[in-house]
Amino acid sequence: MSNRKLHVISTGNQTPENLAKIVGEIHPFIDAIHIREKHRSARDIFNIVTLLVNRSVPLAKIIVNDRIDVAHVKNVKGVQLGYNSLSPEIVKRNFPSLQVGCSVHTLEEASLAQKQGIDYLLFGHIFPTDSKLGLVPKGLEELKDITIDLEIPVIAIGGIKPHHVCEVIEAGAAGIAVMSGVLEAKDPLEQVKSYSQNLLNT
Amino acid sequence: MSNRKLHVISTGNQTPENLAKIVGEIHPFIDAIHIREKHRSARDIFNIVTLLVNRSVPLAKIIVNDRIDVAHVKNVKGVQLGYNSLSPEIVKRNFPSLQVGCSVHTLEEASLAQKQGIDYLLFGHIFPTDSKLGLVPKGLEELKDITIDLEIPVIAIGGIKPHHVCEVIEAGAAGIAVMSGVLEAKDPLEQVKSYSQNLLNT
Repeated sequence: MSNRKLHVISTGNQTPENLAKIVGEIHPFIDAIHIREKHRSARDIFNIVTLLVNRSVPLAKIIVNDRIDVAHVKNVKGVQLGYNSLSPEIVKRNFPSLQVGCSVHTLEEASLAQKQGIDYLLFGHIFPTDSKLGLVPKGLEELKDITIDLEIPVIAIGGIKPHHVCEVIEAGAAGIAVMSGVLEAKDPLEQVKSYSQNLLNT
Repeated sequence: MSNRKLHVISTGNQTPENLAKIVGEIHPFIDAIHIREKHRSARDIFNIVTLLVNRSVPLAKIIVNDRIDVAHVKNVKGVQLGYNSLSPEIVKRNFPSLQVGCSVHTLEEASLAQKQGIDYLLFGHIFPTDSKLGLVPKGLEELKDITIDLEIPVIAIGGIKPHHVCEVIEAGAAGIAVMSGVLEAKDPLEQVKSYSQNLLNT
């Protein structure tokens, strides 16, 4: 695996069983799977982590979105926080064993998150994507500005296809995150291998 | 204050500021205020707890619904769990300092929750209530059956008016919980005093 990170983020559109089945196949080629199922309850998310573990997905590759309690009791790698989550500072202080990532959309948010001691950032969306219709993408220049300004790793997200990987890494990203581009692909394993191979070649 | 408990549960219909203002006035007459704002984010709930504390509501009277992470970092009294929350057993094991209450609707659920080591139950709805239109209330007989069968305290909820207090306590309840009956009353303080006085007289 490359030093460049490949995160896969659940779309919220799949059944827990289907998600677990796919991640059970692709996990050797990715660094992190984010359980980002905003419409699901704590119990549902707990059960999804169990399904993943039953498919031999390592806890060290599982990241839970927003629900710090579920991440803590399941002893997964970390949590991904958004603007309406608990603040990174408070999470770091109270749950020191969890890796903390933050999802940000501006340099200002990114700088604040870095000050709060987080481990990495998700920044986007970089390219146009169906999940952000009508919103102007940040583009590679803004990605470059952020990666120059910050010391922590920046994972780029949003509309990234395998052929984009090289330019995204050249803009300073420490890795990429993909949602439907892997999980809703016709052949998720083949797709994840394309991303992975392109990251290796950077 | 009576040995019988008076819990007040937020309705989800009020602004955080209005809720905090009311609870700031009524807290000396209640045993617990539940922050049950299912549509709100972790950050919102965190902020509501802060607003309550700023109004001198004791942490020992604050219970957070479902969000164990928020309850933990704010060091409140406890959490209230529903059927789609993390299981009481797991919460007890991982967050031993939190009091754990469970909301149940059947004797079966109540027995299971008791086995999982919870501290008290909310059981209802006892009487017809606008928030459960079309659902048959449990009534006092079912409440009695549950309180006879269980060893942990059972707090009755659902459509309880001040004039019901005596019969609810006689059915074996350790206390009552009220939502709109206090928080959306014309004069919440007067209303909470009516409940409190009637509990004292049981």
